[in-house]
Amino acid sequence: MAPTSETLTAERILEATEEVLRRHGPAKATVVDVARALGVSHGSVYRHFRTKAALREAVTKRWLDRTSEKLARIVEATDRDPVTRLRDWLTALFDAKRHKAGDDPELFATYTVLTDENGSVVGEHIAELTAQLTRIITEGAGSGTFAVPDPAVAARAVFQATGRFHDPCHAREWTQPGVGEEFTALVDLLVRGLS
Amino acid sequence: MAPTSETLTAERILEATEEVLRRHGPAKATVVDVARALGVSHGSVYRHFRTKAALREAVTKRWLDRTSEKLARIVEATDRDPVTRLRDWLTALFDAKRHKAGDDPELFATYTVLTDENGSVVGEHIAELTAQLTRIITEGAGSGTFAVPDPAVAARAVFQATGRFHDPCHAREWTQPGVGEEFTALVDLLVRGLS
Repeated sequence: MAPTSETLTAERILEATEEVLRRHGPAKATVVDVARALGVSHGSVYRHFRTKAALREAVTKRWLDRTSEKLARIVEATDRDPVTRLRDWLTALFDAKRHKAGDDPELFATYTVLTDENGSVVGEHIAELTAQLTRIITEGAGSGTFAVPDPAVAARAVFQATGRFHDPCHAREWTQPGVGEEFTALVDLLVRGLS
Repeated sequence: MAPTSETLTAERILEATEEVLRRHGPAKATVVDVARALGVSHGSVYRHFRTKAALREAVTKRWLDRTSEKLARIVEATDRDPVTRLRDWLTALFDAKRHKAGDDPELFATYTVLTDENGSVVGEHIAELTAQLTRIITEGAGSGTFAVPDPAVAARAVFQATGRFHDPCHAREWTQPGVGEEFTALVDLLVRGLS
């Protein structure tokens, strides 16, 4: 139990929520469990998150944001050429997903349930990732590295083409032998298509 | 009930099995149900398929073969150029899957369960489809339309890149607005990558 003297922030509630979800699973975890883990009343939790659904949505967004924040740093490294950044970005996305699925399978399964029930949060996450890709491809089009009529359309195509390496419905395939070579072959083909 | 005077062929059993699966669902359908639908003893069914698992595997293969046989005709139309055949093949695969999912959702859900439990049949189906794609890309490489070092590697990359438009785990996305434009943008990008 955390010391109650600490200020109860939204971030502390979300940390505790993730831990409760990990321990009890998404079907059984309740707001009362979260409050108990923090040593506060459930009313205190509700002051930050007005419903259980809002709390689950916020914890899902936090989980997805961890990936997009990591990828944003690659987008911002504008001293590097667009092809390198595109490859690094796709590799970092695949790595982040593989690690989430492989390092803590229970938590990954939990978040698979949560993302299924929070379609609009997932939609915003995909829009954010596609916007990052669009920025890389737009800069590559500006410098003449890429030849694409519409960077946003190309970014969406690249994101969808690599779905096997980031969409959770393909998680079982991420540990198969040869998956690294398959990823490289696909990225090579897409880079040629953009150039 | 079918007339018992007809010869009991494997094909007749598989037809009846599909109908029984559609009616009872994959969890409840039994070999006795199949025998009853055909007006024969369950022993007669077991003479063709030695176990219930073998029968389920055979009906799954038949369902998948319907798609690969249709696509094989596009591969064999060698009077047409490889880019047209590649586009037609990918479009026909997407159309076949969309129709299976949309025209008879119960049967599609049934076969999603069956494909999950028959991994090796699905593996052979994917190998067959990838071999068809390899043939188109090899012919395109021979005529100078495609510039690829290894047609089999390229075929696998193209198949995986288009997973969003044929893998059943993406079936919910096949009816979303704009999916046709997204498919075209992706195929355009892949064709440019191969050329």
